[in-house]
Amino acid sequence: MENNPIETSILKNIDKPSDIKNLSEAELELLCTEIRQTLVDTVSSTGGHLASNLGTVELTVALHKMFNSPEDKIIWDVGHQAYAHKLLTGRRDSFSTLRTEGGISGFVRPDESEHDSFYEGHAGTSVSQAAGVAAANAAKGSMNYAVAVIGDGSFGNGMVYEALDHAGSTKTRLIIILNDNEMSISENVGAMARYLAVVRAKPEYYRFKAGTEKALRKIPLVGKSLSNHLFRLKNTLKNIIYSSSFFEDLGFKYIGPVDGHDIGHLCDAMDSAKMVEKPVVIHINTVKGRGYDHAENAPEKFHGISKFDINTGEPVQSSGSYSSEFGRIICDFASKDKRICAITAAMALGTGLEEFSKSCSDRFFDVGIAEEHAVTFGSGLSAGGMLPVFAVYSTFLQRCADQLIHDGALQRRKLIVAVDRAGFVGEDGETHQGLFDVSLMQSIPNTTVYSPATYCEMSKAFYNAFYKDKNLVVIRYPRGRMPADTEYSDLCSGDYEIIGNPEAEAALVTYGRLFFNAEKALKLLGEEADRVKIIKLNRIKPIPEEAVDAALGCRNVFFFEEGMKGGGVGERFGCELLLRGFKSGYRLTAVEDEFVAHASVDRLMEKYSMSPEKMAQIIKEGTAI
Amino acid sequence: MENNPIETSILKNIDKPSDIKNLSEAELELLCTEIRQTLVDTVSSTGGHLASNLGTVELTVALHKMFNSPEDKIIWDVGHQAYAHKLLTGRRDSFSTLRTEGGISGFVRPDESEHDSFYEGHAGTSVSQAAGVAAANAAKGSMNYAVAVIGDGSFGNGMVYEALDHAGSTKTRLIIILNDNEMSISENVGAMARYLAVVRAKPEYYRFKAGTEKALRKIPLVGKSLSNHLFRLKNTLKNIIYSSSFFEDLGFKYIGPVDGHDIGHLCDAMDSAKMVEKPVVIHINTVKGRGYDHAENAPEKFHGISKFDINTGEPVQSSGSYSSEFGRIICDFASKDKRICAITAAMALGTGLEEFSKSCSDRFFDVGIAEEHAVTFGSGLSAGGMLPVFAVYSTFLQRCADQLIHDGALQRRKLIVAVDRAGFVGEDGETHQGLFDVSLMQSIPNTTVYSPATYCEMSKAFYNAFYKDKNLVVIRYPRGRMPADTEYSDLCSGDYEIIGNPEAEAALVTYGRLFFNAEKALKLLGEEADRVKIIKLNRIKPIPEEAVDAALGCRNVFFFEEGMKGGGVGERFGCELLLRGFKSGYRLTAVEDEFVAHASVDRLMEKYSMSPEKMAQIIKEGTAI
Repeated sequence: MENNPIETSILKNIDKPSDIKNLSEAELELLCTEIRQTLVDTVSSTGGHLASNLGTVELTVALHKMFNSPEDKIIWDVGHQAYAHKLLTGRRDSFSTLRTEGGISGFVRPDESEHDSFYEGHAGTSVSQAAGVAAANAAKGSMNYAVAVIGDGSFGNGMVYEALDHAGSTKTRLIIILNDNEMSISENVGAMARYLAVVRAKPEYYRFKAGTEKALRKIPLVGKSLSNHLFRLKNTLKNIIYSSSFFEDLGFKYIGPVDGHDIGHLCDAMDSAKMVEKPVVIHINTVKGRGYDHAENAPEKFHGISKFDINTGEPVQSSGSYSSEFGRIICDFASKDKRICAITAAMALGTGLEEFSKSCSDRFFDVGIAEEHAVTFGSGLSAGGMLPVFAVYSTFLQRCADQLIHDGALQRRKLIVAVDRAGFVGEDGETHQGLFDVSLMQSIPNTTVYSPATYCEMSKAFYNAFYKDKNLVVIRYPRGRMPADTEYSDLCSGDYEIIGNPEAEAALVTYGRLFFNAEKALKLLGEEADRVKIIKLNRIKPIPEEAVDAALGCRNVFFFEEGMKGGGVGERFGCELLLRGFKSGYRLTAVEDEFVAHASVDRLMEKYSMSPEKMAQIIKEGTAI
Repeated sequence: MENNPIETSILKNIDKPSDIKNLSEAELELLCTEIRQTLVDTVSSTGGHLASNLGTVELTVALHKMFNSPEDKIIWDVGHQAYAHKLLTGRRDSFSTLRTEGGISGFVRPDESEHDSFYEGHAGTSVSQAAGVAAANAAKGSMNYAVAVIGDGSFGNGMVYEALDHAGSTKTRLIIILNDNEMSISENVGAMARYLAVVRAKPEYYRFKAGTEKALRKIPLVGKSLSNHLFRLKNTLKNIIYSSSFFEDLGFKYIGPVDGHDIGHLCDAMDSAKMVEKPVVIHINTVKGRGYDHAENAPEKFHGISKFDINTGEPVQSSGSYSSEFGRIICDFASKDKRICAITAAMALGTGLEEFSKSCSDRFFDVGIAEEHAVTFGSGLSAGGMLPVFAVYSTFLQRCADQLIHDGALQRRKLIVAVDRAGFVGEDGETHQGLFDVSLMQSIPNTTVYSPATYCEMSKAFYNAFYKDKNLVVIRYPRGRMPADTEYSDLCSGDYEIIGNPEAEAALVTYGRLFFNAEKALKLLGEEADRVKIIKLNRIKPIPEEAVDAALGCRNVFFFEEGMKGGGVGERFGCELLLRGFKSGYRLTAVEDEFVAHASVDRLMEKYSMSPEKMAQIIKEGTAI
């Protein structure tokens, strides 16, 4: 198969959601097939989320058939499963630009389409958002619906319960579609997953599916009276299946389980839900990767994936990374120290913990998408004498800022956080950039933060964290791998390192992987490089005093930071210089006050003036003055 | 009644928890009475949490009778209800120093006693902490218990569900005591509150209480065999009351409801719980304020209270505050603009929203202790066309850092956060100081932050937030009231204000209520004050360019910040000066890298060199150089 646009017969005529409203059942099914072909074709060449999008094709078609977007608001939790939604809402022709700079985002974005209700990217927000929209509708006297679509994995997140707890006591037009695909990013854990498994295993459910459902499907939709009948029937069935369900305890009308790949059945359930005078949960079952065998068989691999070969399903490239290096390091330490535990919030694969989860299964805790609990649970493990490491992406670390302060640093006990995807993450865009963690941690007392560049420095930082430092220790490292073309792959600096002539009149100060750009920048400067030293920070909190002193005598100091300027290390470093009486030139290059959109990491480095070329240029201009 | 120590006969002999193990039933009841007298007596003169502590006296006695602290870990959620625990764990004689500098903390602190398992202060952490301790015990092969004591109000917090979801799937020795007192800080809201209300209303519960329970109480405790009998009986009763309870859905053994003021019954329930081979929830009912009529009748008033008159229950002092001013302001704006809504996370009274909750009840949302949901729900209201204001204490704002980034600023829609208790809060200590919010917000794009000093500036900031600024707007103000002795009570500056000679060679830069200390510092400087101007920031993000420019020509700049130095405005201001080529003296006074313990606000101002006297001294020394 080649990467020319897929030929379609139905999809090509869908320019807006209302275009599907009068399609026949057969046409809707063909539409779904065409959407799937387009998804596999595009994602194989752009990378992106595949399995989850293949699972929500019929759901998306049913939603746009039964609701009127944008008056009714369809709200996609996380927003990674909305590719079909994009194809149906005017973005078919631009869909091939998925996740490329200036192209279609991999997540939902209101600035792309009026059919995208919120900027999405993090889990568990949709119920709160929909509850807010529904409350506003009620206040305005509007009869429109707010529909949240949320996967069972997100139900591990506490915010969802806060929202259910609140919304369950209202009478608003709120519909929650629980998309139960038996898998979030990793295999689901926790009681909620088990509860849903029990629901799925009920024999009544299968009888319901095998018998009643199919019979009902044969009857054409004839509006409210049939729906009412259906509603009563479902209600009865439900009463058999659940004498008191979890959701009804919380105040919701519960409809389900519904076959999420059966458009007719989905539409019937939505029609029923629209007539209920209180918030409704529609529980649907879908299969991740549906319709593409490679993805259906290994959905985790196809959750977020790079470019791949359509025929084999194999990624185009693959090799070591900071994540896999972390996995190796923690297994190594844990084999010698039985106190070492690992915690993940549903990211065992992404954070490199797969091997640990097997070799040290009794000390491995996947708590679901629950970053708050992960930190505080770790605090409990620590109080019990263990050495816990919580591995988390930078962007999701934002979820547990208070826990880091209150249940981490304040406790004066050892707690280690391994922060993956720190810095630019590239194609996932605004919601996923790891640009805030450094600022969030700047103000926290009793906290040590490392930002190593090499694998050796990573390993050393973990050694320090386990056996030398006290209290909260954070070790952050980027997505991807160490560059192949560095001369410093074996560098294993202490808290900081001076590279080049210590007496140089200019200093380039940086940390993390920007060090490798600095290395290249100096090469680009040629002979002028002799006038520049690199002050490479390895520990960024507290900033080593000696590193500040090393910059104090320079005529020009250039700080480069792959993170937000506000509250970052560069501002702190500058202020520290000033407090010591520094009276020379200071330039700070960091991300100014804006969210960073999707583009490749290399492009972002260039755009935000952190590429080797831009670094060299800034230094040239700065020293010439 | 005078404030001499209460004469006690039992309590005076209790120096450690094991001292109560052999007391008779009558002695235990007398002990409870003596504890209550001590609590009312002490809190009337120190201020503190009264109602919740009066409600947990029997519970505390039962816990220390049935468990062996510190091997078994008793973990108090929030930790404001642990006064009786303090009296029984070696802190009886020092208890009169409650909440004073160097004295006993109002919350639990491991550095005060080995019986305090964690530093506590925020809601909803205990289940995660206990789950971690229980998992560590399991890993170590220890048979000790982890016991979390948590109020029904904390069950509005999502983190609790994350923890229940995870812990419910384990087999650890975890016991959760749900202390159901029908009230958290404000009246409970949400589905969970309704669910518990249903449980309480079950006729079986009352029959259970009236009959079986009392009969059982008459039988002396004779160890395991009776307990087993009791366990079976309870199990049967439970099966009558709950065919499928919320907690059992989550994987817990459920015991209850139990009369939380009946020590015998509490002990029986705990004994049963200890024999269950999986996590247990014991649901107990208590009455806040129990035993002190004034508190029992108005428990909300006695949640956190200042010094009061024991006989009348009236606070010793009371007058206007920034909180009440906020309440007045929002009512005022809302009466003219129907889009304005208010959201609180169980803090209607504390944040000054009581009047709004009555006059604009249809636009008032108390979501329970659920700060994450509060922000994202507000984001939904905003998407629906409303003008939402979330009022929250600074320390609890930490709970929703990601929501402020992802569901606030990123959405490019109007969302207003009113941050109360910003800065030192005084006697509540480490867990409650409002010192992190400024740093947390420094890195967030699309965000405006005001830190007004006067009521007029507050009002103007809200006007700007509603009608001039875009996106996320944060307005922060301190606990307490504007000082009576300022000449500037009517000051209503713009984004910044210069006070004094614009050409002065020294600048004192500050924001918020420290301005009033700066005013006094200048008076203390006498004639030298002519050489100093005050640059008063009102908008602290973005920092007004002109305010930086106004400091640029000075020979000495002194920045004073009532917040953390790391990532704060002072570092940013200093760095901005440096980036503009500033080559003069800069001194920054803020809270260095440490948590701030309990003491009066005035004492903290002095301790952290922000009192008028210290300010004057720093300026004198700095300008002399």
